[in-house]
Amino acid sequence: MATYKVEFKPDGKIADVKEGTNIKDAAASVDIVINSPCGGEGTCGKCRVVVKGSNLSIPTEAEERLISSENLKKGHRLACQTKVLGDMEVNVPEDSKIAESKILSDGKGQLVKLHPNISKVYLELDEQTLENQIADLSSLEKNLDLNGGKLVAELDVLYKMSEIIRDSKYKVTAVLDGNTLIDIEPGNTLGKKYGLAVDIGTTSVVCNVVDLNNGSNISVASALNTQGVHGADVISRINYTVENENGLEDLNRRVVQVINQITEYACNEAGVDPNNVYEVTVVGNTTMIHLFLKIPPKYLSLIPYVPVVSDPVETRAYRLNLNVNSNANVYVLPSIAGFVGADTVGVILASDLHKSDTIKLAIDIGTNGELALGSKDKLMTCSCAAGPAFEGAMITHGMRAAPGAIERVELKDKPVCQVIRGGHAIGICGSGLIDVVAEMLKLGIVDSTGRMLSADEVGSKIPDGLKEYLKENDEYGRHLVLDKSNDREVVITQKDVRQVQLAKGAIEAGVNILMKTMGISLDDVSEVLMAGAFGNYIKGENAIQLGLIPKFPLEKVNFIGNAAAAGAKMALMSREARKTAETIAKNTGYMELAVDPDFQNEFMMAMMFPE
Amino acid sequence: MATYKVEFKPDGKIADVKEGTNIKDAAASVDIVINSPCGGEGTCGKCRVVVKGSNLSIPTEAEERLISSENLKKGHRLACQTKVLGDMEVNVPEDSKIAESKILSDGKGQLVKLHPNISKVYLELDEQTLENQIADLSSLEKNLDLNGGKLVAELDVLYKMSEIIRDSKYKVTAVLDGNTLIDIEPGNTLGKKYGLAVDIGTTSVVCNVVDLNNGSNISVASALNTQGVHGADVISRINYTVENENGLEDLNRRVVQVINQITEYACNEAGVDPNNVYEVTVVGNTTMIHLFLKIPPKYLSLIPYVPVVSDPVETRAYRLNLNVNSNANVYVLPSIAGFVGADTVGVILASDLHKSDTIKLAIDIGTNGELALGSKDKLMTCSCAAGPAFEGAMITHGMRAAPGAIERVELKDKPVCQVIRGGHAIGICGSGLIDVVAEMLKLGIVDSTGRMLSADEVGSKIPDGLKEYLKENDEYGRHLVLDKSNDREVVITQKDVRQVQLAKGAIEAGVNILMKTMGISLDDVSEVLMAGAFGNYIKGENAIQLGLIPKFPLEKVNFIGNAAAAGAKMALMSREARKTAETIAKNTGYMELAVDPDFQNEFMMAMMFPE
Repeated sequence: MATYKVEFKPDGKIADVKEGTNIKDAAASVDIVINSPCGGEGTCGKCRVVVKGSNLSIPTEAEERLISSENLKKGHRLACQTKVLGDMEVNVPEDSKIAESKILSDGKGQLVKLHPNISKVYLELDEQTLENQIADLSSLEKNLDLNGGKLVAELDVLYKMSEIIRDSKYKVTAVLDGNTLIDIEPGNTLGKKYGLAVDIGTTSVVCNVVDLNNGSNISVASALNTQGVHGADVISRINYTVENENGLEDLNRRVVQVINQITEYACNEAGVDPNNVYEVTVVGNTTMIHLFLKIPPKYLSLIPYVPVVSDPVETRAYRLNLNVNSNANVYVLPSIAGFVGADTVGVILASDLHKSDTIKLAIDIGTNGELALGSKDKLMTCSCAAGPAFEGAMITHGMRAAPGAIERVELKDKPVCQVIRGGHAIGICGSGLIDVVAEMLKLGIVDSTGRMLSADEVGSKIPDGLKEYLKENDEYGRHLVLDKSNDREVVITQKDVRQVQLAKGAIEAGVNILMKTMGISLDDVSEVLMAGAFGNYIKGENAIQLGLIPKFPLEKVNFIGNAAAAGAKMALMSREARKTAETIAKNTGYMELAVDPDFQNEFMMAMMFPE
Repeated sequence: MATYKVEFKPDGKIADVKEGTNIKDAAASVDIVINSPCGGEGTCGKCRVVVKGSNLSIPTEAEERLISSENLKKGHRLACQTKVLGDMEVNVPEDSKIAESKILSDGKGQLVKLHPNISKVYLELDEQTLENQIADLSSLEKNLDLNGGKLVAELDVLYKMSEIIRDSKYKVTAVLDGNTLIDIEPGNTLGKKYGLAVDIGTTSVVCNVVDLNNGSNISVASALNTQGVHGADVISRINYTVENENGLEDLNRRVVQVINQITEYACNEAGVDPNNVYEVTVVGNTTMIHLFLKIPPKYLSLIPYVPVVSDPVETRAYRLNLNVNSNANVYVLPSIAGFVGADTVGVILASDLHKSDTIKLAIDIGTNGELALGSKDKLMTCSCAAGPAFEGAMITHGMRAAPGAIERVELKDKPVCQVIRGGHAIGICGSGLIDVVAEMLKLGIVDSTGRMLSADEVGSKIPDGLKEYLKENDEYGRHLVLDKSNDREVVITQKDVRQVQLAKGAIEAGVNILMKTMGISLDDVSEVLMAGAFGNYIKGENAIQLGLIPKFPLEKVNFIGNAAAAGAKMALMSREARKTAETIAKNTGYMELAVDPDFQNEFMMAMMFPE
């Protein structure tokens, strides 16, 4: 089969691809990640590119639906739909690329006593003599207090230990994971003992570097999960592994690559040698954990949605290709169920929900929404398929919280928008979406059924200036123009409002069913904890206005940030916190919303906006 | 640098090598292993080949010393000395190749209660439901009796378990190493549970396949250790790893390859799928163990001769590239000291020496000689640098116990020789060597100082016919012709007798010093146990005649065969036997002969033959 050259502008990267490859895959082959929240299904329209030349497939039905014929003529195409049939040049607009996001990396955790799993011991060994022919490993063992246990060593430590002991004149530092010697270093290196807490989100990955000598968080870095190229949500990713022979390897390689990149960055920033990172803790939803461990996630997407493993998994870094100390102990926190993962365990651990005397509700909004409700007496969780609306997918001009995204909206006599990093707006992200829908509700532009009113219907309820932004046309239907300073308008359409209804409805229905099942009313709840990577950027009153957060006194709503990552840090610093995490995973209940006979009804009702 | 083609006859294999490569290495590159007991030092003359053409280096000093000028003209050269300077054809005589040996693979061990480390459990799992969303691994755990422990799994088992569980309709067999799931198999496979006991000798490797359901030894195979191409003794091998950048990798690859080849052969013979081999036990001298594990053995050859590890090592088969079940548990038995290895622990375990009420002496003759003396009260060991004389090295026409080797000799009116597999004699192996020297001693051809008498000096003590075989010339000095049916005579020279004296002297001195140190006299010893791969082929009375075995009633000398391998099999079948092996390694003393002030004196005296 012929191969062709595809040059990507403005990067200038050139991909050599086989005839018939789609442009998205061609871009991926040279590490240009084109936004593709629908997973290449041709439904989201986010992967728009501009193609020069005619060596390409004719527009598909999806392209004709999502791109105006005028723009099609100009070469606008969907990267996931268009096939390469000859050499070509492709321009990838900024808003079709996955860019660095405004990712919340910090969260409030509980104070833990510093007691990490790994330890370091400085040793001054006796030189061996003919009368005292003790093996190198036995010589170390003799000098260690192992509570009567036997010292065993990772094979590669045995490979190097004889030279290190002699080169350092019998002064060495042993790195131990329990009674297992995972490394040996010349001289006294007690001061260098680091750990890494990893939070793998469907959308973004966060790594914290922690000094295990004092528990301080010395560096943090985050990046988008480049698995996004194969779909924004976990189901698209699972399908990709099922439908593509190397799909699992591909997704695994991507997440490991992202973790390695940001770990290298974070270590560099802090002046830490990655070889001195001996311990890694990992949280994430169950699918992310499976992909990180390269375990097939197939049955997570099929009834009854069972994971392969929900217990904590421990292994060595080299087995996962993580670029830290090759024998670093990797501890993956346990999960609760197929759709309530180690990240939720991290949220509970960090928020102390399992110890609370009073009933609390935790809402973790990521690409999915997970809920935990209860107290030390009983704790239940469930997962709501909120969908990726708040991540920008399925929204006409939705995008992630990247530069150019509208993150705040107020409706005065015209829409007043705040854009990330300033400049022209190129789309709208989750917090902006919540703002604008809440503002439209307040002004009556949207009614409680979610219907958008026309400028005529709205009448005198809104300023005349604003009315001019309320429009209707063939391309968008009824819509509100938020920004027209760019060559493309940024709008919110009736369809977008419906997507917000679906997302918030899923979460609200989850809350309601969970409460009903546990016999808890809103009055019994002492506090609502909002967790999640974008949680802190939400304006609380607008979230309540929407019904995304139950109608609740604002002062009792607390934003606890990226609590999953905070939980991972706790498990990194404390073996006791791991035990607690395991107890939480074991004792926390799980409710499968889909089996509740009231779910459909509740969901329909929850889609209504509060009056 | 130019590369040339070297064609090896009679195999017909062609090596492409760089200019200046020696012929031995060229041969090794196409897996023709040329005998090289001296490790390519040019001292043993065992690697003789016949080269056609003139594209080669001029004869070295070593070649001029070891090859007559007549033969040099005919193209006889030493493969380790001759460099390739152009395309050439090389004929490798059979006696320069390493061939299949007569290796003793069986030994007497103690009966053990069958209690292997790994276990198999057949499970019929509940199908998961929405109401019972239990993870696959947890579903297994629920059905296993782990004494309150938690089930953990090797990562690659997690990769495949979900499909296996469903394909087999929830009927699976779990393979467990303690609480670790090392494999999962569809259906009921309880009947297939095998183990492999490996004995890595300096000269040969033996593998026994054992049915772990009933303890029967169902198959055995052995082969020469192809590390021999880099020297017959452990010191040559260690030096090779020190002097060559990839030396350690090379030796490790070779021994693993041999083990894999004979394991495949043995499994085939027995109709066993190597994936059903879940447990491997390994014995060998300390150097062999280091090389097998790819641990640098350097400091074993330097005072004070310390190993990197003497404790048992446990790891998974995939880490050592063994072609059995990839997660098979590999258990390497512990060593006692730098030169008393896991093989000696195996001998003690198999012979029950550590439990004996009376004092016994075990002599394990391999390439080195190891001794164990004592009873249940106290047991001491030492290592004697006997050298590889009994393996054929350093002996004019010495060879391993391969086809064409003289293995029995009687001196009547002419030498009467028994040749392995019959036919023309091409050399003499260890048992033949012991016979001929013992016979010469009996007849007075050799006196107690080891001096060979001339035909004149012998006078009437020997038959006239035999006298004609006693000769003297420039090439061999004084010598006895054993066979002249071939185009090359097979002889025993004065120098050969000296080598036998050195070898037996080392062992005898070791026995004497060990006895003296422990305050034990020969009268206190109730039994002598002769172990070793070639032990059973020795004629006991001749070994006593020589002084190789102490002057001892022949009925109290017992040949126990390859006891090291028998010990490995015990450890394979029984976890308790492993504990015993560990106790033996811990409690058995070690004497370094080199530090004994009497050693040199004893050694000199022990070189004398008994009157």
